[in-house]
Amino acid sequence: MNNERFLVIGGVAAGMSAASRFRRNKPEAEVTVIQNGEYVSYGSCGLPYFISGLVKDVHGLVVYDAEFFKKKRNINILSWHEATKIDPAAKVVLARDLKEGREIKLSYDKLAICTGASPFKPAIPGNELKNIFVIRTAEDGVILRNFIEKEAPQKAAIIGAGPIGMEMTEALSVRGIEVTVIKRPGSILRMFDDDMVAKVEEELKGKNVNLIKNAIIQGFEGDKEGKVRTVVLADTRYDVDFILLATGSKPNSRLAREAGLKVNADETIAVDERMQTSNPDIFAAGDCVGQKDLLTGKEVYFPRGTTANKQGRIAGENASGGNEAFEGITGTLVSKIFDLTVARTGLSSQEAAAAGYDFVTSTISHPDHAFTYPDPAPENITTKLIMDRKTGRLLGAQMIGKHKNMGVAKRIDVFATALQNKMTVDEINRLDLAYSPPYSPFYDNILIAAEVGLRKLSRGT
Amino acid sequence: MNNERFLVIGGVAAGMSAASRFRRNKPEAEVTVIQNGEYVSYGSCGLPYFISGLVKDVHGLVVYDAEFFKKKRNINILSWHEATKIDPAAKVVLARDLKEGREIKLSYDKLAICTGASPFKPAIPGNELKNIFVIRTAEDGVILRNFIEKEAPQKAAIIGAGPIGMEMTEALSVRGIEVTVIKRPGSILRMFDDDMVAKVEEELKGKNVNLIKNAIIQGFEGDKEGKVRTVVLADTRYDVDFILLATGSKPNSRLAREAGLKVNADETIAVDERMQTSNPDIFAAGDCVGQKDLLTGKEVYFPRGTTANKQGRIAGENASGGNEAFEGITGTLVSKIFDLTVARTGLSSQEAAAAGYDFVTSTISHPDHAFTYPDPAPENITTKLIMDRKTGRLLGAQMIGKHKNMGVAKRIDVFATALQNKMTVDEINRLDLAYSPPYSPFYDNILIAAEVGLRKLSRGT
Repeated sequence: MNNERFLVIGGVAAGMSAASRFRRNKPEAEVTVIQNGEYVSYGSCGLPYFISGLVKDVHGLVVYDAEFFKKKRNINILSWHEATKIDPAAKVVLARDLKEGREIKLSYDKLAICTGASPFKPAIPGNELKNIFVIRTAEDGVILRNFIEKEAPQKAAIIGAGPIGMEMTEALSVRGIEVTVIKRPGSILRMFDDDMVAKVEEELKGKNVNLIKNAIIQGFEGDKEGKVRTVVLADTRYDVDFILLATGSKPNSRLAREAGLKVNADETIAVDERMQTSNPDIFAAGDCVGQKDLLTGKEVYFPRGTTANKQGRIAGENASGGNEAFEGITGTLVSKIFDLTVARTGLSSQEAAAAGYDFVTSTISHPDHAFTYPDPAPENITTKLIMDRKTGRLLGAQMIGKHKNMGVAKRIDVFATALQNKMTVDEINRLDLAYSPPYSPFYDNILIAAEVGLRKLSRGT
Repeated sequence: MNNERFLVIGGVAAGMSAASRFRRNKPEAEVTVIQNGEYVSYGSCGLPYFISGLVKDVHGLVVYDAEFFKKKRNINILSWHEATKIDPAAKVVLARDLKEGREIKLSYDKLAICTGASPFKPAIPGNELKNIFVIRTAEDGVILRNFIEKEAPQKAAIIGAGPIGMEMTEALSVRGIEVTVIKRPGSILRMFDDDMVAKVEEELKGKNVNLIKNAIIQGFEGDKEGKVRTVVLADTRYDVDFILLATGSKPNSRLAREAGLKVNADETIAVDERMQTSNPDIFAAGDCVGQKDLLTGKEVYFPRGTTANKQGRIAGENASGGNEAFEGITGTLVSKIFDLTVARTGLSSQEAAAAGYDFVTSTISHPDHAFTYPDPAPENITTKLIMDRKTGRLLGAQMIGKHKNMGVAKRIDVFATALQNKMTVDEINRLDLAYSPPYSPFYDNILIAAEVGLRKLSRGT
């Protein structure tokens, strides 16, 4: 009898986690990963720092290369291969060798679909012009950086203003490029409350970023060579040397749909808590599937690399005969935007309202550490809590502070842990948190936020 | 009828919190605080940074001064007054004016004893000599700093090697003073595991600190002027210009005992969860009382300013007719020791063993953030978990990393939050923590520690 064959489509976060877990559980199995580009296991969240030049070389984004997986983990990597068809009845995947052009056939006993997501390209006239970039894969990063280094562009427009748009705004500014951020009607960083977003807008202004909100883009116009030159709005035109589309992503579920697997209305591949698709031999994980929001219990699409990793591990575990569940997410996110750190977890005010919660918010601004350790000088962090009026339970938290002071990213993790445990604000107020002047004010920002939140809850306003 | 009178003995963390909470609840009451020195509401945890000179002036340690409490909170502060007797039957406290010498009598309806703790002075021959200092109050700090600035001492011995001894070692070293740390048999930083302590010892060595362990001090010897000059061990003598005793503290419970209140065997004042003493009109809070360890359910003495604050608030709440409980602590602590941050929460291995747990430990060393954000370069943090073998529940966590990288203090707070919620390591492994390259490795150190801990638990070793 042949060894068991585990095949994984996609070799980034979810895919390599699935392959590695399967390999650990079944040392005798044949584990193969199909990847449609050169690089596997790279940190796409590091792309802004590759574009800015802080990361010198694209290999600086790669956690482990194909060689490592082959030698150390006995995982076979088929780089530059694109899966074109899944045949669940025959338990076969067809893949095209992108370099040689020929097609190969791969049999599997268990399959994991970790095809990730693709940049969403809005249907704007002219979006086929040259020098309109996206940033999702390592290859996208190489293309954009080569362009910047060869063409020395002066002016860019970034379409979209989510965390990736914001981080790329910083990256391009670091390169000396004049950036105009163009945002359709609706808030920038829409997973944050408006008062928090206002602080980010202030930061952008201070960094000479031109932010155009409520923009309806009529089209992109190019020159004779077909290179994009202008963004046309209703009443204005912006000259550009290139455009970056940062307008979100959509799950890559075509293969799964064509194979007859169940796909949800939002185009995510349908999976259960065990990451199993509608076919018991096929699992899916990462940005091509959704997640359960632990606050509302509803399915959401909040693609994050860390979630992909966790889901991939569970797909690999269960494909190899295990029985683990991925319960869901609390929607935690941190982003460095110029000199600010912005972070959130749980529900924003808008999300809490949409979910039908009767909620109270409270906001404090307080130094990140004690003034009895003045090196560096304490700087304020703004902390906002969203709380259930009836139960006093925390629903969400948002923080903004200076990047240099570093206390924001980890404090949001305390709130994320509190959310996972369904803590009330009163319980948070009793947490035994570490204190020493270099690290925290005497009452930590978390405790002050909880205390002020409690008072607001008790006043009922 | 007169207004209700709330009297507080002691004006630092617990005392000022009690007074402030009572005032908030009862705007008409007379609230008075007796303080046996000049300063109220100061951050004694900042004393090492006052001694090092980082904090320029002693007023830099004071959170709010007496004037603030009088004007803004209508709290009367009797500075330089020492309470000498409590008469629970007459509901009167006698206090001596330390400047004028006369005695005054203060009536109360409710009383809070927040007398804190005093440095423990070991019975070493010669301990009455001059230039042997302690560091507990703001006044202690002023005395020591004046000595250093006037006498320009070259050599110091610090007796004791807990967090305060370690922080003061750094402070004196910053001043250019050659420091010998002398520790009786037993580990330095005894609330940490030996392998974590070894890293601190390495750091001390790198900073040219002379650490003498397992020392039995025979005595201190002085010169003709009665100034200490030598520390005498069994087989060695150390010349010194001064000595700092950092040998722990003992609760100030004499007043309470003499008033007939119940005092525990460890000399803490006995209180219930409501911070009420054996007399229903008298509350006590802060370093003069103990705390319940939430892990073991046992009473411990782990005096911390943040705990004092929380207890003080609850004493003030309940003295003013409320009904709040202080459930206990998880024993969280962070300390900057030269270029290291060391932090712990929950039980150490020694404490888990003493409490009868069958436990497993696991230790990882991993970069504090992703190498895709190389500014500053990632540096390793060591994370150790102590886990209950049977249930997989987290019992304790310890971390050591570089101070500059800042991730240790807040990550320990995530573990503290996990402990408060009795989380298993498996549950911790599923936390939805924030990730972005400047702040965290792709799998956060917390998640890697949990994953490795889980494997160790499943192997049962």
